[in-house]
Amino acid sequence: MSLAKPIRRKLDLANGRVDLSHGAGGRAMGRLIEDVFLAAFDNAWLAAGNDQSAFEVAACRMVMTTDAYVVSPIFFPGGDIGTLAVNGTINDIAMAGARPLYLSASFVLEEGLPLADLVRVARSMGEASRAAGVPIITGDTKVVERGKADKIFISTAGVGVTPPGLALSSDAVQPGDAVVVSGTIGDHGVAVMSKRENLEFETAILSDCAPLHGLVADMVAAAGPGLRVMRDPTRGGLAATLNELANQSGVGFTLEEDAIPVRAEVAAACEFLGLDPLNVANEGKLVAIVAPDRLEPLLAAMRAHPLGARAAMIGRAVEDPDRFVEMRTVFGGGRIVDWLAGEQLPRIC
Amino acid sequence: MSLAKPIRRKLDLANGRVDLSHGAGGRAMGRLIEDVFLAAFDNAWLAAGNDQSAFEVAACRMVMTTDAYVVSPIFFPGGDIGTLAVNGTINDIAMAGARPLYLSASFVLEEGLPLADLVRVARSMGEASRAAGVPIITGDTKVVERGKADKIFISTAGVGVTPPGLALSSDAVQPGDAVVVSGTIGDHGVAVMSKRENLEFETAILSDCAPLHGLVADMVAAAGPGLRVMRDPTRGGLAATLNELANQSGVGFTLEEDAIPVRAEVAAACEFLGLDPLNVANEGKLVAIVAPDRLEPLLAAMRAHPLGARAAMIGRAVEDPDRFVEMRTVFGGGRIVDWLAGEQLPRIC
Repeated sequence: MSLAKPIRRKLDLANGRVDLSHGAGGRAMGRLIEDVFLAAFDNAWLAAGNDQSAFEVAACRMVMTTDAYVVSPIFFPGGDIGTLAVNGTINDIAMAGARPLYLSASFVLEEGLPLADLVRVARSMGEASRAAGVPIITGDTKVVERGKADKIFISTAGVGVTPPGLALSSDAVQPGDAVVVSGTIGDHGVAVMSKRENLEFETAILSDCAPLHGLVADMVAAAGPGLRVMRDPTRGGLAATLNELANQSGVGFTLEEDAIPVRAEVAAACEFLGLDPLNVANEGKLVAIVAPDRLEPLLAAMRAHPLGARAAMIGRAVEDPDRFVEMRTVFGGGRIVDWLAGEQLPRIC
Repeated sequence: MSLAKPIRRKLDLANGRVDLSHGAGGRAMGRLIEDVFLAAFDNAWLAAGNDQSAFEVAACRMVMTTDAYVVSPIFFPGGDIGTLAVNGTINDIAMAGARPLYLSASFVLEEGLPLADLVRVARSMGEASRAAGVPIITGDTKVVERGKADKIFISTAGVGVTPPGLALSSDAVQPGDAVVVSGTIGDHGVAVMSKRENLEFETAILSDCAPLHGLVADMVAAAGPGLRVMRDPTRGGLAATLNELANQSGVGFTLEEDAIPVRAEVAAACEFLGLDPLNVANEGKLVAIVAPDRLEPLLAAMRAHPLGARAAMIGRAVEDPDRFVEMRTVFGGGRIVDWLAGEQLPRIC
């Protein structure tokens, strides 16, 4: 054949836009994957160019998880949809006490999305993945017509390995156990809502988006089998997480309002926005239920970790056939902490 | 406490619609997950209600893959976005010669989607998953405002286990190797396009959507190390898949047009739609490259399987520094089979 293959043209990453050909399975898609995702994620698994990636594991108990991310706006103070997608899936693995190993990422892109925005998100993902030591080894990209999606949706899945003998479970929770949070609550949701509503507060409120598997490893080492169960209070916030745990464990929880760490600026913003910090999403915090005799070592280990510096015991599990979550307020009264009923905070993650 | 928890109300699955509260992390989301997804997928992993699921594995070589599905319309002859999402991810695992173990599924739903459509998709997924013996063990649901997505997008991820010693790779392809397809090409893409364009053909054209891991197991057993590499020619069709393989393997391919199985009605529809069947997506077919001395046992094994009944050798790998895919046409001429350049077939999977 005398024809030469066409010279490979680079994408215009500064001024170009995603078009339908970038999802069509042809050469344009190959270029997008190479110039954007392979460049940003930068690992040998992706470079191999297969529709799946392989890795060796020893005999173990594995966990698998997935999450879809549709946060709006895609860039917000303290992170973006990319950092969220990587850290969120890492955290779902970590909540089982597991060590995250590998991630996958699939993208639904809206035609017309500036390539510069896609590059920025991909780089955030690459950085978050390297910072956490959890590579993104396989992926997929689809493009839909303008107006058929909102800029970019990301689904990440992940696998991890549970330490031998560790079995965290809501079934293990006992009346008398302590409820611990790893730090201030409400930061992520308020950061996104502020950006969305174009609010400016005197002090910038940043998303707490962070990978929790390092903190979790220290907690598992410190509390041993006294650690009953962990959850990350994302959508629905602490209120939803504790109600879910109560339902699954068959206990109630009583919380002390003045023990729950909330940044002053977050509390103020919540008041302004008409939100209860207990309903607001977190992306770098966890709730742990721990046996009373392991509470002190657990808190000490958490406070020694940068992501647990403001860890606090906020309440206790109690016997309650109704499985209520109750809170003693700072004024000495009591109130029921319920799930949020409606749609107060859509697209927060 | 004297308050009783509210009585759990069932969703109106026949007439209801998805609203933003179904993605908000509260009680409405819990109901949606329980009444739709847990009911349809029906397994103990999901019923445990954790944000991740656990399973035991022996020491092995694992594969992981993911795909996003945005097909439009979501229901088409021979399948729907749900069957596609399950079988497509199973197939990406199977193409590594691996046995699929578990799937995850994440959903982006558009506000206003009829719950009946969601139930239908979820049931398709449950049925496809049970038929293939690969459970969906973890998932996530997000809801975006009306007009911010197109009905439903699904991302599935999956993990599988590779048989010891098996290492399929495009690097293994040698000039002289045979190119085999497992059956007729173009069925899926034409089925979707016909539905989308509201075309009626005399004979209904159905998507070939099917899980290929059973066929693959038989192929691995029959061809042993003579099996070099496999791919499923989805987006971009056979043309894109062979060009990708040629690029990665450093060989060219010569195909015989009259050896490529295409249903008469698919060929006619392609002519009508201005498509080349070689560019049209398949969702239940594979291409395998095999050493010449294992060709006959491989074809025999494939033809003995219901999903390989029309398996055929369609060409050979040849030495070619330009890595071209060429085809000898039925008229005795030759032409280059290239990737599809543009956006001819968006949202086909």
